[in-house]
Amino acid sequence: MTSQDWQDISKKAQDKLYESIPSEWRISKDKLPPAAQKDVTDFPAKSGILTEAELAITDSYATEIVKRIAAGEWKVEDVTRAFCKRAAIAHQVVNCLTVIMFEEGIAHAKKLDEWFAKTGKTVGPLHGLPVSLKDNFNVPNFPSSVGFTSWALEPMEEESTIVGILRDLGAVAYVKTNVPTAMMIAESVNNCYGRTVSPQNRNLTSGGSSGGESALIAMRGSPLGVGTDIGGSLRIPAACTGIYTLRPSYGRFPHFDARSGLAGQESIGSVHGPMARSVADLRLFTDNVANAGPWFKDPKCIPMPWRQAELKSKPKIGVLWDNGMITPTPPVKRALKTVVDKLRTKGYVIVDWPADGHAEAMELMGKFFTADGGKSVREILEPVGEPFRPEMKSYETANDLGVYDLWQLQKQRTALQKKYLDRWAACDGLDAILGPTTPYAAPKNGDFKSVSYTGVFNILDYSATSFPTGLYGDRDQDTYPSDFKAFGELDETTKQDYDANEIHGIPISLQLTARRLEDEKIMELTARVCNDIA
Amino acid sequence: MTSQDWQDISKKAQDKLYESIPSEWRISKDKLPPAAQKDVTDFPAKSGILTEAELAITDSYATEIVKRIAAGEWKVEDVTRAFCKRAAIAHQVVNCLTVIMFEEGIAHAKKLDEWFAKTGKTVGPLHGLPVSLKDNFNVPNFPSSVGFTSWALEPMEEESTIVGILRDLGAVAYVKTNVPTAMMIAESVNNCYGRTVSPQNRNLTSGGSSGGESALIAMRGSPLGVGTDIGGSLRIPAACTGIYTLRPSYGRFPHFDARSGLAGQESIGSVHGPMARSVADLRLFTDNVANAGPWFKDPKCIPMPWRQAELKSKPKIGVLWDNGMITPTPPVKRALKTVVDKLRTKGYVIVDWPADGHAEAMELMGKFFTADGGKSVREILEPVGEPFRPEMKSYETANDLGVYDLWQLQKQRTALQKKYLDRWAACDGLDAILGPTTPYAAPKNGDFKSVSYTGVFNILDYSATSFPTGLYGDRDQDTYPSDFKAFGELDETTKQDYDANEIHGIPISLQLTARRLEDEKIMELTARVCNDIA
Repeated sequence: MTSQDWQDISKKAQDKLYESIPSEWRISKDKLPPAAQKDVTDFPAKSGILTEAELAITDSYATEIVKRIAAGEWKVEDVTRAFCKRAAIAHQVVNCLTVIMFEEGIAHAKKLDEWFAKTGKTVGPLHGLPVSLKDNFNVPNFPSSVGFTSWALEPMEEESTIVGILRDLGAVAYVKTNVPTAMMIAESVNNCYGRTVSPQNRNLTSGGSSGGESALIAMRGSPLGVGTDIGGSLRIPAACTGIYTLRPSYGRFPHFDARSGLAGQESIGSVHGPMARSVADLRLFTDNVANAGPWFKDPKCIPMPWRQAELKSKPKIGVLWDNGMITPTPPVKRALKTVVDKLRTKGYVIVDWPADGHAEAMELMGKFFTADGGKSVREILEPVGEPFRPEMKSYETANDLGVYDLWQLQKQRTALQKKYLDRWAACDGLDAILGPTTPYAAPKNGDFKSVSYTGVFNILDYSATSFPTGLYGDRDQDTYPSDFKAFGELDETTKQDYDANEIHGIPISLQLTARRLEDEKIMELTARVCNDIA
Repeated sequence: MTSQDWQDISKKAQDKLYESIPSEWRISKDKLPPAAQKDVTDFPAKSGILTEAELAITDSYATEIVKRIAAGEWKVEDVTRAFCKRAAIAHQVVNCLTVIMFEEGIAHAKKLDEWFAKTGKTVGPLHGLPVSLKDNFNVPNFPSSVGFTSWALEPMEEESTIVGILRDLGAVAYVKTNVPTAMMIAESVNNCYGRTVSPQNRNLTSGGSSGGESALIAMRGSPLGVGTDIGGSLRIPAACTGIYTLRPSYGRFPHFDARSGLAGQESIGSVHGPMARSVADLRLFTDNVANAGPWFKDPKCIPMPWRQAELKSKPKIGVLWDNGMITPTPPVKRALKTVVDKLRTKGYVIVDWPADGHAEAMELMGKFFTADGGKSVREILEPVGEPFRPEMKSYETANDLGVYDLWQLQKQRTALQKKYLDRWAACDGLDAILGPTTPYAAPKNGDFKSVSYTGVFNILDYSATSFPTGLYGDRDQDTYPSDFKAFGELDETTKQDYDANEIHGIPISLQLTARRLEDEKIMELTARVCNDIA
């Protein structure tokens, strides 16, 4: 690659992306919702591009889609085209895509239909399901920009292990979705493709780093997506848009050859997981991928098929009311209290769970991410003169720690993990921790300040879900108390940033966390909790 | 700790160790085998210190010992005292111990007998079994020197997780065993406690780093020991002394709070595993420890109880005839050929397994170990002025790599793991690799030159056993062919070092390796192979 001006590449990449939308699905400026329109979730139905049948298809859950296809009621081609259309529309209002593979997806769909017509059988449990992919999953012949201009026009040769496994299960790849630079910002913004916003309120972020996914899924432009999480990158965008996700423990799902901005960093393992509109849809992914034997293809995968989890009749839940760093904003505080009250009436055993060790965990996380002195990121930015984004100041200014110091931090992290595990064991029979996913329902674009509610569980490598509570921001109820006392400067800023008008009507999510590799348990429990609070 | 002269500490530590042997078990110089006597395995029986009953106890397998104790035939106190005696004798001829806990062990034994007398029950499946521990497992109030003088007189406060789990299972701790400095030399030699030698020929090494264990077990001074392995430290000493071991994959057995010379180093995971005189004895450890739920106590343990492994009627074995770096010395070459021929007649499917990637793996290993510029080791040596041992030159001269470069190496290692896994999958139905554990039956003290046969499987984190073939070095048969062509300088030196007279009568071991976390399978297969070649 020769050195090129990054702005030039960015323009080329954006043009190429736009041109890959079939002209009949492109929407002229005057037909698009006005810039001031916050909520665009109803735009696909109003756009005139989708037929009634296509709206019905795209409004369906993943579990229903595969059932109908397997029953011969729906054709894969129709399903795929419907999602291609809706993804194209979604992109034009929330800027959620980076790679469009409509032609390839529809060609694949046709082959699946042919196979089904000939054999009467599906190729696998995901037969015909369109699945969207976070930008960093490699699909041969398409770029994986990971938010970097220097990578945006460079087609990949490799295929990420998960991409092949999903195809073997019958899924259809058709889009890749936007991320922040290096996937290391909690909002999905980068110098190449710009910013993805929340469909429910475009003044708010769809979260990051899997925020192209969350925006697309919330627009129903994808029934099921695959994201990644190293500090909250699945849970944060899921929470910001009111969808479901599982951050699995490291080693459950194949991560090989997923592109990274911090390649080779292992002090905190990056994991990938599913994002969808129901727990059952997540299970479509978790059960089938785990049972596909990913450990035969990815050296980091643990040979552990999806197991049956048994829940107690009265689960014991520790409540993390706050983490001593950032007070949850009023809607999140209210949702947590409301959910806890409901669970109590349903017989759950509720205890308080203090945030011991959380601040230390976050301090470690910051050091691990910048331990290479920001060199990994710099080496990708420099060839095209792309500047560090302001959100990545800590990478720009860091110095290489040296391996000796890294070893000391790793030792400290393991000691922290041990302490946390012992504390869990001492809380006799504790099943899970319930707390905020983020301090926000969703913050305004540019206002995401702290990943501390999610990051701690990356340091611990615990299994965690984010789920919408069925509650929504309410400008009248959700105000800071007059006697609010901030934990510190960042907490005070969070209060200043907060605008009850912006979060009005925005879904509020919470996080449920079990111990390491208790993925099955946390999924069962999340389904139970969601049912019990419905 | 104040700075003290290391030689002074070394003398104090050795004196303290000697004085902790009850005087009636100390053997005067004139009663000890002469220095020129190579084989001292018969000395316990000749020493006059052990009774006939005690000899019978200590000659028994671990599995038999627990059975007899549980049946009320043997008292724990008698069993423990017998092993204390034999361990004391062993130490005086092969220098295998670092910490003696006879009083504590016998006191513990008495309590177990009382419990059994009162309840008629055992406390667990290892009730009353004396288990020896590698020096780096922490027992409160006793030092864990890890071969460093500066640590030799410093009692530990912590207890390693495995020590507590073994006690809960009923095992009795009574000795800790010698290791090389930092456990990073393939022979068990350090500036504090000196050198452990092989009981079968004291001119030969008992291997390292778990070479105090292997010498003790080969002397029948312990029925079951726990060692660790980061580059071959279980398999090498097991092979040098003709006993059995399993190097499990990372995360199967608790490693928390085992002391390390390279604390916080995670690019290659150190694991611990059992060492014993039969596969069944190893199983006593593997099944019970895995099923004790170590993942509730060690944050790095995987929630994976011991599983049932199903073997094919005709296992497919890839034979690693050599690794392209060091030619196996003549006895090992003969043993490998003999075993392969036998397995072929038993119906095993035999294929050649080339050493692709092995040299790269070893290059990575060297870089990982010294990535901190040797600072971890230096910081432990310096306070008492202890010099680097000559075997650790690479640590003394290394520079800190920097985290960025470490990340690149970790990325390279993962790519290597992926390539190896794909190669395995492409060798349709391959069950295991059979090859040398080391190039030697056992080399002369100071002559251990290459851990390349074991280290590659640490880089891969594969499950591997070392087992004696039932074959022994033979000075007449085991000579280098006249047309020998060395792979390189080290290989030529290995040939020069070789002395057929020294390995005459020495057990020859081999290594069997399955993929990552296939611990159950490799144990079953090792039992089958041992049976089929018997």
